[in-house]
Amino acid sequence: MGMNDFIKSPDDRLNRQLLFSAEIDKMTSVLRRTLLIDKSRRENDAEHSWHIAVMAMLFSEYASEPVDIGRAVQMCVVHDLVEIEAGDTFAYDTAGNEDKAEREKLAADKLFSKLPDDQGKMIRSLWEEFDAMETPDARYAACMDRLQPFLHNTLTEGHGWQSGNVERSSIEKRMSIIKDFMPEVYKWITTCLDNAVKKGWVDTSTPI
Amino acid sequence: MGMNDFIKSPDDRLNRQLLFSAEIDKMTSVLRRTLLIDKSRRENDAEHSWHIAVMAMLFSEYASEPVDIGRAVQMCVVHDLVEIEAGDTFAYDTAGNEDKAEREKLAADKLFSKLPDDQGKMIRSLWEEFDAMETPDARYAACMDRLQPFLHNTLTEGHGWQSGNVERSSIEKRMSIIKDFMPEVYKWITTCLDNAVKKGWVDTSTPI
Repeated sequence: MGMNDFIKSPDDRLNRQLLFSAEIDKMTSVLRRTLLIDKSRRENDAEHSWHIAVMAMLFSEYASEPVDIGRAVQMCVVHDLVEIEAGDTFAYDTAGNEDKAEREKLAADKLFSKLPDDQGKMIRSLWEEFDAMETPDARYAACMDRLQPFLHNTLTEGHGWQSGNVERSSIEKRMSIIKDFMPEVYKWITTCLDNAVKKGWVDTSTPI
Repeated sequence: MGMNDFIKSPDDRLNRQLLFSAEIDKMTSVLRRTLLIDKSRRENDAEHSWHIAVMAMLFSEYASEPVDIGRAVQMCVVHDLVEIEAGDTFAYDTAGNEDKAEREKLAADKLFSKLPDDQGKMIRSLWEEFDAMETPDARYAACMDRLQPFLHNTLTEGHGWQSGNVERSSIEKRMSIIKDFMPEVYKWITTCLDNAVKKGWVDTSTPI
């Protein structure tokens, strides 16, 4: 990083905002399991966050409760920021997900303290709302966070599923928020899963 | 692209939304002149769009008019979509910018027609608003679109400026929207430009 080249403003608040903006560029090197659709390489967190933010502008008509799209889009762009410190945990990594909450809490303490207090609290609170998946906006953003990698997997021969030996039942569990909140979209998910089983992209060793 | 693997839903509207979502993943391969801050490689349009969207959540206090942050963030995530068809034009490429408007209009016709009509119009209208830089939301989003690569350039030894032999006066022209709309932030821009001249990162062959 060229942070040493940073030219300070006399305004400390502005410096913190600019340095935080530089800091989050690290999202471009947090790699996810998912491939880009052209299969050229793994997707990174910046790309994924952007992608679900645009999708959040398109799918609200399927949501079972009214959604504030502007808020949901903001949630999408910040929902993975803590991974700058905590790293990405593959959604189907059981062990990795056991201590994920604790790791991410510490990461949030570290990352968001770099912002002016009010803004650190604002972004942290959006991230916590996303993570709790209780409000309609958070449930909707969480659906986008599941739908986008699902779409990528269906178009890359189930790369993430195959490489992680993921079972259909685990995918269904991960997609259950879509089943609850966007049942029309879940019908398409089911059809794609049937196809993925037929193609041998998902593990079906455990009877479901 | 694995588009042939796309499993259709009986709902044609949903298919268009899903296929458009897949289509825009191409933003990850539209490269910009700007380097990532760690200098590892050039930034792509998906990363840039995400980055300015997060920044739009942080700098509104400096705007000279009230801004609807939720709208500005949405503008940020869609503002470069047409480059999937039209390619990125370096901000300081005079010849490339001469026919940019025409190329991008044709690109928009092609790209946004892939969405259901109402949604194609909605995103196109946000993009046109951004491009016209007349409303406060658009002016603010445009400031983020200038501030982020400026920040990157200051932290990568002026890579974009040096590689394009860019003159200080051209950068000042490009940053004039920040001068108008966020004068406090522009003070920092000026200090950084003084430093860039001192370091020899910008061309000063034309007297200004």
